[in-house]
Amino acid sequence: MKDERILLEHGSGGLLMNALIHDAFMPVFKNDYLEAMLDSAVIAIGKKKVCFTTDSYVVDPIFFPGGDIGSLSIHGTVNDIAMCGGKPLFISVGLILEEGFPKHDLERIITSMGKAAKTAGVQVVTGDTKVVPKGSADKIFINTSGLGIVEYKAAISPKSIRKDDCIIVSGTIGDHGAAILSTRQDLGFRSNILSDSAALNGLVEDVLAASKNIRFMRDATRGGLGAVLVEAAMASSLAFEIEEQQIPVRDDVRGLCEILGLDPIFIANEGKMVVVCAGRDADKVLSVIKAHPLGSGASIIGKVKETGRSRVILRTIVGGSRELDLPEGELIPRIC
Amino acid sequence: MKDERILLEHGSGGLLMNALIHDAFMPVFKNDYLEAMLDSAVIAIGKKKVCFTTDSYVVDPIFFPGGDIGSLSIHGTVNDIAMCGGKPLFISVGLILEEGFPKHDLERIITSMGKAAKTAGVQVVTGDTKVVPKGSADKIFINTSGLGIVEYKAAISPKSIRKDDCIIVSGTIGDHGAAILSTRQDLGFRSNILSDSAALNGLVEDVLAASKNIRFMRDATRGGLGAVLVEAAMASSLAFEIEEQQIPVRDDVRGLCEILGLDPIFIANEGKMVVVCAGRDADKVLSVIKAHPLGSGASIIGKVKETGRSRVILRTIVGGSRELDLPEGELIPRIC
Repeated sequence: MKDERILLEHGSGGLLMNALIHDAFMPVFKNDYLEAMLDSAVIAIGKKKVCFTTDSYVVDPIFFPGGDIGSLSIHGTVNDIAMCGGKPLFISVGLILEEGFPKHDLERIITSMGKAAKTAGVQVVTGDTKVVPKGSADKIFINTSGLGIVEYKAAISPKSIRKDDCIIVSGTIGDHGAAILSTRQDLGFRSNILSDSAALNGLVEDVLAASKNIRFMRDATRGGLGAVLVEAAMASSLAFEIEEQQIPVRDDVRGLCEILGLDPIFIANEGKMVVVCAGRDADKVLSVIKAHPLGSGASIIGKVKETGRSRVILRTIVGGSRELDLPEGELIPRIC
Repeated sequence: MKDERILLEHGSGGLLMNALIHDAFMPVFKNDYLEAMLDSAVIAIGKKKVCFTTDSYVVDPIFFPGGDIGSLSIHGTVNDIAMCGGKPLFISVGLILEEGFPKHDLERIITSMGKAAKTAGVQVVTGDTKVVPKGSADKIFINTSGLGIVEYKAAISPKSIRKDDCIIVSGTIGDHGAAILSTRQDLGFRSNILSDSAALNGLVEDVLAASKNIRFMRDATRGGLGAVLVEAAMASSLAFEIEEQQIPVRDDVRGLCEILGLDPIFIANEGKMVVVCAGRDADKVLSVIKAHPLGSGASIIGKVKETGRSRVILRTIVGGSRELDLPEGELIPRIC
């Protein structure tokens, strides 16, 4: 252990990150909130259920097609709160700036954060700024933490998932990761792929209003749709069956992934979510999602099949099937 | 503006940082919480008053005499909540790790965070880990955000300060900054100065129980005691008169500052606070602070004298007087 070092894969949303959380953090900080393994802690304050969440953003490049580190940092934290069924209200902002960072870029990022916060209906209420000497950080890192209030009655958690529930994805997958990749690779052609970075709290409100039987929601960020499904199957001890053909992927995203040898199912999104709901409510929930501007590409991609063990089986387009596992490596460093 | 760049001074707790907050952040995020200029936002959740705060820690070195970046990150956020009169309860942790960071050091830091959290009586309930490629960050940065509940009736705020209030400091100043400096400078002698990094919430509980007339509290971190006094005078539009002779400074800290040409009044602390209370309660509050292990060196250092303008006058040991201003430069980069 003494000579072991942190690898990029420890921040990937994959196997090594899971191991780090379980081996290094859990034993020290052990409590029920952490063990729930949700995107936010759901805590009681007086008679209110409050979601509390944090995320640091280190995305590279800081300005990318469809967004920037500022808007991303608001969207990500708003979404983490929304995924626990919370109405996001208050955001904190912690900036780490590299000495020499252009003030103009900082103002552009702050303006972008302000717009994203306004659109999502949240207030930035507290903050902190640190500056480190040139070379001690790369341009700008942003931490946002957030608070929201949960009014939904049922517990939104992988543990609430039941046999015969349906699994919905809210639109095309892999757009954010592909947009970031397109800025890094010399592809020999111009890509028009935009990040899907967006605040999903409005869409979530519609979903929660449509059904009392929403079991689980998760935005498919690091590790992509694949990681969300595998983690939910593990946490619920259930088997999911997914139809690859039903997973929406843009042609250009699929093309880019093919060139680079990547599977879109593991590519990060920043404005797409997985919803698991009771099978009988699936059509209603799907139609509500599709009616929202951020959910027009939604699709029912699979269902929950109870078996003795937790796993995710992908029925492939060519008629075969394979079991999904968490990605081992880091597909795209500094994706968010 | 286009060619302006971020300087170390923008993160110093001094004049440039104040300018950045007022020029770049306030106009975009404008709201009453931010404008209160407290260490935490005080928000309403149901019938509860809740403090919400955030801080990023970039201290260098990450292990220093008297603490490390882990314990510091818990103490700092616990203290920010306590300074608003809140009882700290829940903490989030956002880690940014440099690829190649020794796992053993990470475990040591996490263990230190766990101990500090236990001592302070707070729970780490949610977290996030990012890893950036080698050279994109320096070892480890930690963001902690926190929540606490305020039960104290009166508003703890510089705006609550009144003429004839007394100003108390809870112990010797400059210890943290001097401890960090002693690790960086080749002083030609061994220093025994330890950081004062500590959670002040227990001490604050005693203070709030002792008097209904606590006006203002602030831990004297970046910018030191001097910055706290100047900012409080500005925010309250009052004149403070401080007796330099009453300010407790350890001999070795004073010696180190003299060698380096620094004024201890502007050197960072991580376990000392300023308390402003009604003059008639000052002796009672002082004795409660002195009775606490973290306040044994406390002293009444001055009082509030109403005048037309806000300023801090220091009556010096040699019998003169000078007006304090926020430090212009960055005295010690990466102090916290």
